[in-house]
Amino acid sequence: MMSAHSIDLFDTVIHGGTVATASDTALCDVGIRNGKIAALGQDLRGRQMLDASDRLVLPGGIDAHCHLDQPRAQGLASGGALMADDFHSGSLSAAFGGNTTIIPFAVQHRGQSLVAAVADYHQRANARAFIDYGFHLIVSDPRPEVLSDELPMLIARGHASVKVYMTYEAMRLSDRQILDVLDCNRRAGALTMIHAENYECISWLTDRLEAEGKLAPKFHEDSRPMAIEREATHRAITLSEVAQAEMLIVHVSGREAIEEIRRARARGIRIYAETCPQYLFLSTADLDQPDFRGAMCMCSPPPREPVNQTHVWQGIEDGLFDIFSSDHAPYRFDPSGKLMYGPKVSFRRVANGIPGLETRGPLLFSEGVMTGRIDLNRFVALNSTNSAKLYGLHPRKGTIAVGSDADIAIWDPARRVTITNDMLHHNVDYTPYEGREICGWPVTVISRGEVVVHEGELLGRAGHGHFVERYRPAKGAASWN
Amino acid sequence: MMSAHSIDLFDTVIHGGTVATASDTALCDVGIRNGKIAALGQDLRGRQMLDASDRLVLPGGIDAHCHLDQPRAQGLASGGALMADDFHSGSLSAAFGGNTTIIPFAVQHRGQSLVAAVADYHQRANARAFIDYGFHLIVSDPRPEVLSDELPMLIARGHASVKVYMTYEAMRLSDRQILDVLDCNRRAGALTMIHAENYECISWLTDRLEAEGKLAPKFHEDSRPMAIEREATHRAITLSEVAQAEMLIVHVSGREAIEEIRRARARGIRIYAETCPQYLFLSTADLDQPDFRGAMCMCSPPPREPVNQTHVWQGIEDGLFDIFSSDHAPYRFDPSGKLMYGPKVSFRRVANGIPGLETRGPLLFSEGVMTGRIDLNRFVALNSTNSAKLYGLHPRKGTIAVGSDADIAIWDPARRVTITNDMLHHNVDYTPYEGREICGWPVTVISRGEVVVHEGELLGRAGHGHFVERYRPAKGAASWN
Amino acid sequence: MMSAHSIDLFDTVIHGGTVATASDTALCDVGIRNGKIAALGQDLRGRQMLDASDRLVLPGGIDAHCHLDQPRAQGLASGGALMADDFHSGSLSAAFGGNTTIIPFAVQHRGQSLVAAVADYHQRANARAFIDYGFHLIVSDPRPEVLSDELPMLIARGHASVKVYMTYEAMRLSDRQILDVLDCNRRAGALTMIHAENYECISWLTDRLEAEGKLAPKFHEDSRPMAIEREATHRAITLSEVAQAEMLIVHVSGREAIEEIRRARARGIRIYAETCPQYLFLSTADLDQPDFRGAMCMCSPPPREPVNQTHVWQGIEDGLFDIFSSDHAPYRFDPSGKLMYGPKVSFRRVANGIPGLETRGPLLFSEGVMTGRIDLNRFVALNSTNSAKLYGLHPRKGTIAVGSDADIAIWDPARRVTITNDMLHHNVDYTPYEGREICGWPVTVISRGEVVVHEGELLGRAGHGHFVERYRPAKGAASWN
Amino acid sequence: MMSAHSIDLFDTVIHGGTVATASDTALCDVGIRNGKIAALGQDLRGRQMLDASDRLVLPGGIDAHCHLDQPRAQGLASGGALMADDFHSGSLSAAFGGNTTIIPFAVQHRGQSLVAAVADYHQRANARAFIDYGFHLIVSDPRPEVLSDELPMLIARGHASVKVYMTYEAMRLSDRQILDVLDCNRRAGALTMIHAENYECISWLTDRLEAEGKLAPKFHEDSRPMAIEREATHRAITLSEVAQAEMLIVHVSGREAIEEIRRARARGIRIYAETCPQYLFLSTADLDQPDFRGAMCMCSPPPREPVNQTHVWQGIEDGLFDIFSSDHAPYRFDPSGKLMYGPKVSFRRVANGIPGLETRGPLLFSEGVMTGRIDLNRFVALNSTNSAKLYGLHPRKGTIAVGSDADIAIWDPARRVTITNDMLHHNVDYTPYEGREICGWPVTVISRGEVVVHEGELLGRAGHGHFVERYRPAKGAASWN
Repeated sequence: MMSAHSIDLFDTVIHGGTVATASDTALCDVGIRNGKIAALGQDLRGRQMLDASDRLVLPGGIDAHCHLDQPRAQGLASGGALMADDFHSGSLSAAFGGNTTIIPFAVQHRGQSLVAAVADYHQRANARAFIDYGFHLIVSDPRPEVLSDELPMLIARGHASVKVYMTYEAMRLSDRQILDVLDCNRRAGALTMIHAENYECISWLTDRLEAEGKLAPKFHEDSRPMAIEREATHRAITLSEVAQAEMLIVHVSGREAIEEIRRARARGIRIYAETCPQYLFLSTADLDQPDFRGAMCMCSPPPREPVNQTHVWQGIEDGLFDIFSSDHAPYRFDPSGKLMYGPKVSFRRVANGIPGLETRGPLLFSEGVMTGRIDLNRFVALNSTNSAKLYGLHPRKGTIAVGSDADIAIWDPARRVTITNDMLHHNVDYTPYEGREICGWPVTVISRGEVVVHEGELLGRAGHGHFVERYRPAKGAASWN
Repeated sequence: MMSAHSIDLFDTVIHGGTVATASDTALCDVGIRNGKIAALGQDLRGRQMLDASDRLVLPGGIDAHCHLDQPRAQGLASGGALMADDFHSGSLSAAFGGNTTIIPFAVQHRGQSLVAAVADYHQRANARAFIDYGFHLIVSDPRPEVLSDELPMLIARGHASVKVYMTYEAMRLSDRQILDVLDCNRRAGALTMIHAENYECISWLTDRLEAEGKLAPKFHEDSRPMAIEREATHRAITLSEVAQAEMLIVHVSGREAIEEIRRARARGIRIYAETCPQYLFLSTADLDQPDFRGAMCMCSPPPREPVNQTHVWQGIEDGLFDIFSSDHAPYRFDPSGKLMYGPKVSFRRVANGIPGLETRGPLLFSEGVMTGRIDLNRFVALNSTNSAKLYGLHPRKGTIAVGSDADIAIWDPARRVTITNDMLHHNVDYTPYEGREICGWPVTVISRGEVVVHEGELLGRAGHGHFVERYRPAKGAASWN
Repeated sequence: MMSAHSIDLFDTVIHGGTVATASDTALCDVGIRNGKIAALGQDLRGRQMLDASDRLVLPGGIDAHCHLDQPRAQGLASGGALMADDFHSGSLSAAFGGNTTIIPFAVQHRGQSLVAAVADYHQRANARAFIDYGFHLIVSDPRPEVLSDELPMLIARGHASVKVYMTYEAMRLSDRQILDVLDCNRRAGALTMIHAENYECISWLTDRLEAEGKLAPKFHEDSRPMAIEREATHRAITLSEVAQAEMLIVHVSGREAIEEIRRARARGIRIYAETCPQYLFLSTADLDQPDFRGAMCMCSPPPREPVNQTHVWQGIEDGLFDIFSSDHAPYRFDPSGKLMYGPKVSFRRVANGIPGLETRGPLLFSEGVMTGRIDLNRFVALNSTNSAKLYGLHPRKGTIAVGSDADIAIWDPARRVTITNDMLHHNVDYTPYEGREICGWPVTVISRGEVVVHEGELLGRAGHGHFVERYRPAKGAASWN
Repeated sequence: MMSAHSIDLFDTVIHGGTVATASDTALCDVGIRNGKIAALGQDLRGRQMLDASDRLVLPGGIDAHCHLDQPRAQGLASGGALMADDFHSGSLSAAFGGNTTIIPFAVQHRGQSLVAAVADYHQRANARAFIDYGFHLIVSDPRPEVLSDELPMLIARGHASVKVYMTYEAMRLSDRQILDVLDCNRRAGALTMIHAENYECISWLTDRLEAEGKLAPKFHEDSRPMAIEREATHRAITLSEVAQAEMLIVHVSGREAIEEIRRARARGIRIYAETCPQYLFLSTADLDQPDFRGAMCMCSPPPREPVNQTHVWQGIEDGLFDIFSSDHAPYRFDPSGKLMYGPKVSFRRVANGIPGLETRGPLLFSEGVMTGRIDLNRFVALNSTNSAKLYGLHPRKGTIAVGSDADIAIWDPARRVTITNDMLHHNVDYTPYEGREICGWPVTVISRGEVVVHEGELLGRAGHGHFVERYRPAKGAASWN
């Protein structure tokens, strides 16, 4: 028979929507077969037809920075508090926010085997996730055997990214250790992510603030001012130059750190940068609330002066930021979490971090796309594609292209939503964005061809989500194939 | 019958290639119907099957800065010399270089009606082009009626870009005139392109060089040093700020102008930038050749010191440059062109410009992609997509997506080619890149579904190419639909 | 006879004060003979003994930017208004403010002979001044004969500085004319001063503001925003680079222009900079006063946002600014001056400029030295020495050293003064600083050994002040002898 | 009798010279009485008359950064090598180079009492110096009692400057320790000096170079590239910001560190900077000499690429550098010093540092003043006055003013000298400047009124030089008295 296509029906066809990638926008159907995108075209037919008229058909979100079910320990950002979300509630919340992949962190504690830490984290994830996931590795103890054996082996097994800290007593590496990890990652093909704040400055300032009786959450920002983030950012960049290894600065909070990144790029250094909703939508004012409620907005680096939001938006608009993540850190505002040491304690004792898996994409869509600050393609890049590319998931994830996983979120751009914690699916008892009205919401979420969420209803199942191996091309090689 | 697709065959299917857009790379077929891309998928079938195994299937190039068949006049860059290429030879050469769209310039001379100039230029193009084309408008005389009537009307008729000059006696506008044009363009929806060099500095320096007997082509660069391009670039950006209108700086030559653009963006100003092959591959050394042959590499701004190429490459790599164009200015090295005033004349009397329509894409592919400096998607963006987006051709042109024109170039990435002028199809008697060996070449070029060039053979016809109207979305509006 | 010194008495000895230069501070006596400083030492004896116990003995101030008795004309900053101060009242006011030298401007109008303009200005000054004076030359019409004959001859006759304008219809030079003047000045040994604002941007914005009915003085700042001063500053610097001639940017108003100057210096360009009290003490708020009274604070560039004062202070503190002048422009707030076109007219028609000869030094002393922002030596440099050096008066003027003119101001650092216009000696009917309380005042002013002012009393006489020739060393030569 | 001066003769009169300070230049006599400058004037008479016709009479040089007779220890810059100069030979060499004050370092080693270290250093200096001296304190172990007791007490006893290291195993402080020292110094009134290089980067790079067999002196620069000096400079500045304490960056070697200092000042941070002759006159080429002779030019930071000298000169010219010191570190090129571990050892084992006490001033005079790069007053500032001011010696030292110590160097600006080690008075067996021809030399050196050196002859005596207490004014206070 003469036929333009194979005569088999597609498993599923998303029909009539506006399909967008990081580059293009087209009115066409998406044909899905065996969990993958099999065709883009007009009038495709499938056993399951999903109507996407007046809707946007976008790659599912990838939240590349979130914390789930990390073991409790002292000397961390958490201060020993309990993470309220595990892979079950975390991935569920992520899916409802339009995400189809999450990349939380497998944490090595000092003295621990990195392999063992990763094995444990696989256990925690196993059969609990609604959507796919990978692990970044956090290295806190780069002993010789970790660098020579464990880390290269784990990278070779699909963990193409490694995070290091310049602060937190229990996690921070020395400059020399960071050089060692950068060097190892460069050789093995992993991207180094870095939390850039100067630990010693923070602890020196914190001691002084406490000595002056300045304990409230609002002093959190005074204990880690922009200058010390700028310092660590510049130092991290220098380490990257010395090791000749690519690096990504996570959760960049504002103007002065941005300037360091601009300067590095103008020198030809390949530095990537991430920011988060809290630096667009929160400010020091949110830390200064009565009844210790400022603790709910405490994260590190802290939100800055309101004017600073302008600078972060600009970095969103002009391409400075490659990655937009939630840095979801799920601590309840109760004695299990933020109030572990009570409501009268020094800010130093409060677990750092705020929830955001479910609200990340919608906030950026509403305040970015609907206001005209960024176009839809840039939104797709920030919400999904760039994370896929930088972290070794592309082209399997992060786009709508033939051969890619059918990880898709169908958005209603006209849907008006007032964010309340009641509507969210995480296990945290608050959202910093309570009461904020936004426009646009992901109404259908598809993971490898299966509908996980549709119009607020859960159709997926725990255990559908799998671990995805991630690999990065060797540095410097042509990557067109 | 239940069928996954419509049963009609596609007109043409490009089979088995690696398809790349500015964002994605996928192994899939491209189905073409009625001159448009109708489907992307596996195993598509068409009446005409083009095998693209081991080939790259890319959007056809868009050369957004080239000069063809402009009327001769004094006081211009040309100094009255004859352009060797018209729409016939120019579009032919462009097609052989993998391009499917060109955007040359309709020039208004002082005292002339802009509408009349454009009408004349339509005549010159009519029935002569092998591929599609649009016109940028050059405004040299923004009289009140031009600003109030002609320019808005022409923009409304699909000329979404307007170029102004800060130099050349016969073309340059005053700062105030530039503000007027920027303002008009912003309201009417056109992008303003600007040639940024300080005319008065150039003429002052030229007078002094001539007075000192420094007449050779190598003194061309001394007459327009980087500082005066930096000055004009900064001034142009300021005019853009004052008028609150977007602007694109054409043919940025090097480090100091780049720095002004970086600074502007860091202030939040939306400035776009173009560079050209001559700033990556030529240098002041090329101006200093015996027998006046340096004149063959004279263009404005001039190529700079060799070290400067590094800075331009960096702008290519890190996203500073949106557009990569040829600035093809076809003057023969004979008395019709470069030697119009003989070989002993001052550099001031030599027509400015070099040819490059056919070599632009291959040079960037070979030295950019094959060396690993940029990935294939960034190449597509620079070679095609970004021009389509900025100049109002997207998504009709500039990408491979369902619904777009089937403007496609199939590249053999392994093809080794030694550039010689003999192999080129322009009507200029030299190429600055004579003898350069490169890797990768566009072997098949398709315009709206019709094969124009295949393996060095011309299959297309003059007159196939049409004028394409170009429109830009109103500034600041959300652009997802 | 064995004697440590000549046995002759000094004419005058200033006894017991703290003597400061731009570098040093010492407790010693100053011996004056024949109008010059003859000795510094202990226990000097003179016919006239001036007690300076608890006082500061400083070089008399040099106000290197002030306008006096300039002929009326259209198209100027003045808009044809009458200057209220001539050499008599102007030099009197200057002396009461601790100055011993002023350098106003001899203005060439278009078509006029520069030599004639200077001759006229000598007439206006002759026998009227209480203190010494020089003339900067303003060139508005650099015709060939002006450049080849008049200007070099006048420079050779002791006018070592030439001012050019980038704005004001009747004064502004083209970039090329500025290059010509720079070149002439470099060869002849004069410093080029430049008023850096972009005329065409100002007139374009002014037209738009007027079209929108925005006529009040507060819109003056909107018509010449920081960006257009930044542009002109950068352009001026580039012209200086091209001509390889030193340049001084007068009345720098704020952050963005300062940044251009810093950048230029970091490139190795020798650019000097001046600021004025209005940029330290006034702001846009002062332009927004009822009853058109904002006009009293209108000058160009305008005072900026309050936060900008911080940036100007920083430039004062860290050495960015070489010169601190009044830019005294004496227009009364009546129909002869600011209100020439009435109180309902557009800001465009209001004479630009504010008075300040008498308050310049005391304001800087009080808010600079007494607050600890700058030390006494830096005050001396800004108030006096730097102007002497840059404008060719040093070491004759601007310091307290053996052989220098005995131009000295004795300050009481503890004197508290509330500035009112009543106490000032200019002929303007207001001061922008009415009611401001300051600490420190020059109580005795000595010109070439003669006491001009003592404790508020005039002891000098009109005609004492002479024209002083000023010469600059040839550029680049060692200057230790 | 009526007399202009006291009739007593001066002890000494320097007659007929050109006297220069950091601000002024005057032709006058200098009258000295009781070791102090008693008068400046004409025709002064003294018991001893020194003819200074055709000579320059300048404040004696102050070399504010030199190492003498420091105890040997491991883990230092010296690697345990012996310092060839003690206070006797060091101060002698300094005097012959036109200096009248030196400020070497009293070093605390880890575990040592700072007070004891200083007492020991007083012993080493006692009765051995030809000219006056002070001590900077080097703190390597800021234990609580050092910060609370020893350091404030020593500062109160006239040691107004404290140096800390960011590198060298045995000396380096952590960021937190540096904050503690800065805070202590700010409160107690000392200036913090800092050696800014990133230790961990250096040791990481050194390990790698050694592993690759790159041991020669020329690899010294590869082990501590500009980027790691830039990093440490930026970090040091940030520590200064956090502690709100002034800081001086010693021995700044080049462009990127300079840029950090410029940026800091543009933010309003009060950072001072020093450079040394080795960054103006040596380069990486000097490290790459046969027979291990490159070791003679090894210092830290190392000399950079030749082009870098331009940037350092620019900082000298435009006021970026406040201090110009020798960083004299006297290690012989024999087994006691540079060759302690033999000529085949890794660069890591070679004592860092080069001699320069005697050549510092003449090199700057010849290449700075005689070439016209700086004027004589700027030379005086760099050679003497600025060190006096910043380190608490002014106005007692560092200028020629009534009441100051009669510390004077009389220079013959026309004296042509070819530098050879034979002519120098240090105890080092080489000079890096062997064979360099210069113009200008200090022919007579006077310390507190006594001639120490005259025309190459030693007239002074060991023990004449005394310890001078140094105090800095409290930060922020007005300093006019």
